[in-house]
Amino acid sequence: MAIIVQKFGGSSLADAPCIGRCAQRAVRAFQEGRQVIVVVSAMGDTTDQLSELAVQVTDRPSQREMDMLLATGEQVSIALMTMALHRLGADAVSMTGRQIGLLTDQVHTKARIRSIDTSRLRRELDAGRIVVVAGFQGISDEGQITTLGRGGSDTTAVAIAAALGIAENNGACEIYTDVDGVYTADPRRVANARKLARITYEEMLELASLGASVMHSRAVVFGQKYGVPIHVRHSAKPDPGTMIVKETPDMEDIAVVGCALTPDLGRISVRGIPNKPGIQALIFGNLSDAAILVDDIMQTEAGDTASISFTVEHQDLAEVKPAVQKSLDEIGCGEMSIEVGLAKVSAVGVGMRTHTGVAAAMFSALGQAGIHINNITTSEIKISCIVPKEHGDRALQVVHDAFDLDQTNESFAKDHSQHTAKRPT
Amino acid sequence: MAIIVQKFGGSSLADAPCIGRCAQRAVRAFQEGRQVIVVVSAMGDTTDQLSELAVQVTDRPSQREMDMLLATGEQVSIALMTMALHRLGADAVSMTGRQIGLLTDQVHTKARIRSIDTSRLRRELDAGRIVVVAGFQGISDEGQITTLGRGGSDTTAVAIAAALGIAENNGACEIYTDVDGVYTADPRRVANARKLARITYEEMLELASLGASVMHSRAVVFGQKYGVPIHVRHSAKPDPGTMIVKETPDMEDIAVVGCALTPDLGRISVRGIPNKPGIQALIFGNLSDAAILVDDIMQTEAGDTASISFTVEHQDLAEVKPAVQKSLDEIGCGEMSIEVGLAKVSAVGVGMRTHTGVAAAMFSALGQAGIHINNITTSEIKISCIVPKEHGDRALQVVHDAFDLDQTNESFAKDHSQHTAKRPT
Repeated sequence: MAIIVQKFGGSSLADAPCIGRCAQRAVRAFQEGRQVIVVVSAMGDTTDQLSELAVQVTDRPSQREMDMLLATGEQVSIALMTMALHRLGADAVSMTGRQIGLLTDQVHTKARIRSIDTSRLRRELDAGRIVVVAGFQGISDEGQITTLGRGGSDTTAVAIAAALGIAENNGACEIYTDVDGVYTADPRRVANARKLARITYEEMLELASLGASVMHSRAVVFGQKYGVPIHVRHSAKPDPGTMIVKETPDMEDIAVVGCALTPDLGRISVRGIPNKPGIQALIFGNLSDAAILVDDIMQTEAGDTASISFTVEHQDLAEVKPAVQKSLDEIGCGEMSIEVGLAKVSAVGVGMRTHTGVAAAMFSALGQAGIHINNITTSEIKISCIVPKEHGDRALQVVHDAFDLDQTNESFAKDHSQHTAKRPT
Repeated sequence: MAIIVQKFGGSSLADAPCIGRCAQRAVRAFQEGRQVIVVVSAMGDTTDQLSELAVQVTDRPSQREMDMLLATGEQVSIALMTMALHRLGADAVSMTGRQIGLLTDQVHTKARIRSIDTSRLRRELDAGRIVVVAGFQGISDEGQITTLGRGGSDTTAVAIAAALGIAENNGACEIYTDVDGVYTADPRRVANARKLARITYEEMLELASLGASVMHSRAVVFGQKYGVPIHVRHSAKPDPGTMIVKETPDMEDIAVVGCALTPDLGRISVRGIPNKPGIQALIFGNLSDAAILVDDIMQTEAGDTASISFTVEHQDLAEVKPAVQKSLDEIGCGEMSIEVGLAKVSAVGVGMRTHTGVAAAMFSALGQAGIHINNITTSEIKISCIVPKEHGDRALQVVHDAFDLDQTNESFAKDHSQHTAKRPT
């Protein structure tokens, strides 16, 4: 019998009526003849409330005790979800991370999954029960309660799907959230953005790193590693969402699947530092110690000295300055300059690997729109342009239009595929 | 090294500052050279809030899932208490019911303790740690999370104290609460009520059944069974409270240690029912099915018919009527009458076993005060009189005065002891 794993996030479990609606989803899947596992997060903003309690007690809470504390949020959810399923007449049983034998390493607050003992899960499923599993939590082999960090419940769901081999069994892993799925661009910024029926793991990861926070990257990486098809969909709507899947040959027909905007960036440039090994490690080590997420990094060199520049979210700028100054003090030379008012527009698609002309088309569209390109960075499946902040939203729309992302037809790809055409970029 | 078990109830853990104060208690005991185990309840009214959530989801929550839900309350407390101890520089570790191996039967929501695996507790204590244990919860041998029902955290504390043999080791079990200790009478009713330095388990049980809700009876019974001395004291005051201990010969010198009032009772009388076996079981079975707590029962017989009367708390009267009527319908004869506006004043003391004249002194004092005694019931260590409700508080004061309970001297006992005096009752 096919197994379906349904994960419901905190916003889908805000109160008792919400929990009831999610329970109905699970019962429907069960009545359609599938074995059902429900993975839940903590209700609403429970995790924030618990963290706030810890802060009231101490400013440096032990990580083991944070896990002990936060794991209660999901335990509350499994009990209530199971009660809601009972109310609908379903046979259901709740299980903690320990009870499903979700074994992790001992790194509290960001533990990594080592294994899942599927025997207990299968026993309950085979007894005709809907199994309600606490996401986000596990146990170390010392019997300590651990948690998986941000996006942990998504990861739990995908890991269970992988452990049960649902891909080989016509099963599914459904991530229910408060958005319809993955769009060609953020629909709040681009009016004619279109919901994608499917996207590859890699494309999803590139988009997630650009701020499309539909699903946590870690769970996508897990899905990619074990080939678990993930269906991202809205918890309150019946329509299908977006399938995150392995790349198949036909997916290369589309050069660009989506685009994204990072709306407010600053760029820090460090000049006149020695062009020798270890300098980069020192600078970015200090930034990492200050917990600053660095975006794109560029380095140029001129003889004995080098220049490094990188972008960060505008809100992090205040903390960047002292961290970089610390590096310069340690190096004993060099100077820092800061540029604000930047944005980054990116186009993403696995088809780029086989299509030429994608970069040229993007630059050309931005140029025709009179938008200055400040800088360019690329990965195998992504092209990013730094543009002035005030043109950010327009740049996103221009790129969206340039690749006809509001249309399901593959006009650009057909014109530019290396397989079919040979004209220069 | 002597072990001290300190239990803090929900009202002592209402918020972060309260938790901090309780943590200071534990650290002080540790600094005095003792091994310290802290047992905590859920914070403030957490348990009620969680129960309310369950009610919002379903009107008939599964008992297994209620345990899954409610056990989170104590888990939150152990994490926060441990953080508070860390903040004070103490080495401390939190442990769930499962982690201390508190094994119970499988009766969810009112499980009974079977055993505690003290090896893990001792290992942590011997490593110099304060161990913070979640009260109220355990696991069944099937690995299910169970809870011990009302007063469960008190029971956990006493059970741990018993399992570690603290009585043989000069240790203590301290129950911190929001009252100073056990009084000779409710201080809100009797201005000159006096805090008792010690009381026997039996006396405590009789007083608890009369509504002196300092500590749950179940934990007292546990303490009695395993000879654990229990120290009931105020969580926010330094003064010693009341020791609940085994009876010792010198305790018989005091005939009456305390008195109590049940302020508002109704009496139901059933007349003209057949005087044959099984009738009582039928009547009180129906009352039990309606979850009505019956107070004193009296039966008189006259030939073929019998009369039964019993008292209940006034608030239960509305539910008593249909339950008794059901019995009369099943019996096919008999009639019911109801009397309201009654109260019950009781005097309690293990010394009654060896002292004569206690009942006489009580009746005499009530008579001299012009208070009509409606009915009398007794146990081995308790005398109760039903009086008109409007005289309840005065009757309590009269009895308190009659036995000089505001004084620590043992004048009544010295005058009336069978050991020293032979005059008639």
